[in-house]
Amino acid sequence: MEKTQALAACVFCFGMSYSISDLAKILGLPHQGDGNQLLTRVSSWEDADNSSLIFLEISGKRITLPERVPAACIMAPPAVVRSGWNAILSDTPKLHFARAGQLLQPRPLGQGFRHATSVVSAQAVIGGNVDIGPHVTVAAGTFIGDGCILHTGAVVGKNCILGEQCILYPGVVLYDRVELGNRVTLHAGAVVGGDGFGYVSDGKKQEKFPQVGRVVIEEDVEIGCNTTIDRGSPRIGAGAKIDNLVQIAHNVQIGRGVIIAAQTGISGSTVIEDWAVIGGQVGFGDHARVESGVIIGSKAGILPGKIVRKGEVYWGVPVRPLREFKRLNALFGRLPEMKDEIDALKEALKRLEDAFRDLQHRISESP
Amino acid sequence: MEKTQALAACVFCFGMSYSISDLAKILGLPHQGDGNQLLTRVSSWEDADNSSLIFLEISGKRITLPERVPAACIMAPPAVVRSGWNAILSDTPKLHFARAGQLLQPRPLGQGFRHATSVVSAQAVIGGNVDIGPHVTVAAGTFIGDGCILHTGAVVGKNCILGEQCILYPGVVLYDRVELGNRVTLHAGAVVGGDGFGYVSDGKKQEKFPQVGRVVIEEDVEIGCNTTIDRGSPRIGAGAKIDNLVQIAHNVQIGRGVIIAAQTGISGSTVIEDWAVIGGQVGFGDHARVESGVIIGSKAGILPGKIVRKGEVYWGVPVRPLREFKRLNALFGRLPEMKDEIDALKEALKRLEDAFRDLQHRISESP
Amino acid sequence: MEKTQALAACVFCFGMSYSISDLAKILGLPHQGDGNQLLTRVSSWEDADNSSLIFLEISGKRITLPERVPAACIMAPPAVVRSGWNAILSDTPKLHFARAGQLLQPRPLGQGFRHATSVVSAQAVIGGNVDIGPHVTVAAGTFIGDGCILHTGAVVGKNCILGEQCILYPGVVLYDRVELGNRVTLHAGAVVGGDGFGYVSDGKKQEKFPQVGRVVIEEDVEIGCNTTIDRGSPRIGAGAKIDNLVQIAHNVQIGRGVIIAAQTGISGSTVIEDWAVIGGQVGFGDHARVESGVIIGSKAGILPGKIVRKGEVYWGVPVRPLREFKRLNALFGRLPEMKDEIDALKEALKRLEDAFRDLQHRISESP
Repeated sequence: MEKTQALAACVFCFGMSYSISDLAKILGLPHQGDGNQLLTRVSSWEDADNSSLIFLEISGKRITLPERVPAACIMAPPAVVRSGWNAILSDTPKLHFARAGQLLQPRPLGQGFRHATSVVSAQAVIGGNVDIGPHVTVAAGTFIGDGCILHTGAVVGKNCILGEQCILYPGVVLYDRVELGNRVTLHAGAVVGGDGFGYVSDGKKQEKFPQVGRVVIEEDVEIGCNTTIDRGSPRIGAGAKIDNLVQIAHNVQIGRGVIIAAQTGISGSTVIEDWAVIGGQVGFGDHARVESGVIIGSKAGILPGKIVRKGEVYWGVPVRPLREFKRLNALFGRLPEMKDEIDALKEALKRLEDAFRDLQHRISESP
Repeated sequence: MEKTQALAACVFCFGMSYSISDLAKILGLPHQGDGNQLLTRVSSWEDADNSSLIFLEISGKRITLPERVPAACIMAPPAVVRSGWNAILSDTPKLHFARAGQLLQPRPLGQGFRHATSVVSAQAVIGGNVDIGPHVTVAAGTFIGDGCILHTGAVVGKNCILGEQCILYPGVVLYDRVELGNRVTLHAGAVVGGDGFGYVSDGKKQEKFPQVGRVVIEEDVEIGCNTTIDRGSPRIGAGAKIDNLVQIAHNVQIGRGVIIAAQTGISGSTVIEDWAVIGGQVGFGDHARVESGVIIGSKAGILPGKIVRKGEVYWGVPVRPLREFKRLNALFGRLPEMKDEIDALKEALKRLEDAFRDLQHRISESP
Repeated sequence: MEKTQALAACVFCFGMSYSISDLAKILGLPHQGDGNQLLTRVSSWEDADNSSLIFLEISGKRITLPERVPAACIMAPPAVVRSGWNAILSDTPKLHFARAGQLLQPRPLGQGFRHATSVVSAQAVIGGNVDIGPHVTVAAGTFIGDGCILHTGAVVGKNCILGEQCILYPGVVLYDRVELGNRVTLHAGAVVGGDGFGYVSDGKKQEKFPQVGRVVIEEDVEIGCNTTIDRGSPRIGAGAKIDNLVQIAHNVQIGRGVIIAAQTGISGSTVIEDWAVIGGQVGFGDHARVESGVIIGSKAGILPGKIVRKGEVYWGVPVRPLREFKRLNALFGRLPEMKDEIDALKEALKRLEDAFRDLQHRISESP
């Protein structure tokens, strides 16, 4: 049982501490106040204590700043920092706060623990300092890179390749022939490599269309809880971030740095180019293409085969450029007025026709 | 293996039996017929047998009632009960049927079984009468309250607190620092405490925004299969009921008694106040607020920052009050007629203009 | 550990090989070229090698066919096959390619392996040649048919019945009293038999409505990753195919051969009749009915109680026949023009009214 505890302990307790001056130096930022004050964590304003770093962004809203910062230190733009504060000065405080978070609570690294209840094939190759938690299974022909952490109950199929420092949270399932680059993170319940959803009807029954090929997930990708990615040669580009409960079908190509919010679904053979940002609950038909850098709003729908051109923000079902969508949506809300205007026009025209007929009549009868 | 069987057996077989008269008495309702007849379960009409209780609601539709009830007893309003029936009389038969169900098939309680394949940290504190099924993992620093049931393969992270009589169905995952009140039910595959989905771009790559804080799920909450709830201080209020495949992002606040149907997604920092009822496949932008008691129809979309005011039912994308939505939807369906009317108006106006010009011409030429 | 490896090895490596002439003969198709060439797998064009079969469909687009097929053999219509190719001739190449895939990579069959870490109740009945992988649990009163494969961590509750040759991928959860016909496939993380989502409010709290009854999934059904199917007497008809992350509520009836794409949700007591095809992210209210053979487009919404009549394709929220939807959608996009036309009409009418008034005035003043 001791190993279990150690394993459990190793995974989340890598908190580091830095003095304000050291942290500022690493981030390349000026600071003020007590540079020797130790910081051990980042926190929200509500949860802050005397060893935590908080941050402040200048937004449109005017907020009243407190006399004393309710934390050990604040990351904030110079313009708002008061003289008595311990502060690290940044014009992009959210970004630097994120970086501080990575320094204070760095990504966990495996330490080489292996739980007795794990089942690892003798034909699997396990790198150095890999943590393998309780009830984990690793099948034959699979390679696990240095420093990976496989949490409780993770299942890794045959002939998979995991790069270095990947983290598989509890219950993640990799089917056979899945490849992960370095530092890939898969959250609990994510499933990678299921059969693509393809059938051919012969008129009497649905015949399963074979889904072959690997799945490739490149380095620094993070995938959310219970998200599903099907087999059939999909590629998830380096640095892409995919939220919870997303569905990615067979043969989909996701570019580098793409962001996909929760519950979005992407049908077979669709391509999302680099740096696109996709909202939640969006649906993509198959063989669509989203050009690089495009932003698509939540709940949008993209028709099969549609090419969504770069340089715009898109909304709606089917998607339209945001400006157009806004105008249409506003007019949709004005349908009752349009209807009334049409009715008023009909009546006014009718009155004018009547008056005109009267006039005609009068003229024709006039001597 | 014997413990396994016992554990498996203990969990679902708590069926109780009551005579009709005893059950009616507990529910505070009158009854008629054979009060000594034993009831052992509630059932649908189709599955009923001679020991089951069924129920009947008076709906708008006229239904023909059978001479004999196809069950041991029926729960029904006095007005429809025939003289030969065994019946418990209720003006809210569905509600009392639900309560009868809870008496006949009460919520299971742990009995203190622990399966040999479970992995429980010596630094976890396990209350009395806790059932821990096969392949369950409980990490260090966690407290499990009396009478909890952890089904096969449930994973409980570090420093979690489970109240009394919680049930975790197979494969549930709690990340670290999750708190459950008493009698919380998590269905199979639900994941609580995953990292919130937040990134800050520095123009070259997405930096992970730190998600800190606990998750608090208050008493009597029920959460559906494969639903995901992220870390970052979300709170799920007492008695809230959340269906399958729902996504709840970081820092979301769900009030007491809220109902959320399947596949709905709630973005970061949104607040759903007490007793709101949210349909299926609804999407919420971040920092939105739904006031207490609001009803939102399925597939609705709520824009970021939107405040949905109390006292109304809402539908549509973006949401509008139901009456307004209905009117707009009806007019949307009438767009072809509106288009035809506009065309007809154009033509009629043209004709009138021509006739008018003729008349002008005739007058100007008249002597 | 040896058994594990054997089990892992048994599951996915059933590749068969056929000569071109043998395969053509079994499929009842003519062939040309080297009939003795061995085929070991189907593949995409990109992944093809000298033992793989690829296929070609004639589409609207003109494609340039290569001199030599980049594979051992091609399945294609006679009209496009060039003389030098190894080819199997078919007018429905996609269908025959699917069948060839089933011959070359047949559905895996259990071999009778049982992993030492599995927990099988002594009161469960396990058929012949059943594979039971690591950390699998089978509870009391359950029957597993011949040739089933239960992958790592699958959980089968009490009193379930599995037909022959079912496959449960890793982490599948069957609650109690689930029945599977022969050759049912459940992908990783699918959950069958969770409580239906039903509550009755007494004004102060939500009382759980009892969900009773079995779940019946008929033969040859395939269900995707992380899909959830609730208890309360649902029936999934023979040969139905359900994609990933689909939600099927209590008491839903799915007909034979129905196709349901990813992330669709079906509310309680709704009926989908045989051979209907449902797109992705569709939402169904409760007590709706879809008649047989109906096609419903992605993202559609069906109101509670709605009957969707056969013989049409449907789209939209709420659903309308496709032709009507298209017309309305086109007019929606033309709302700005309609608005402009109304404004132009108002102006033209105003001008005419003014001119008319002038004329009236002139006439009345004329001698």
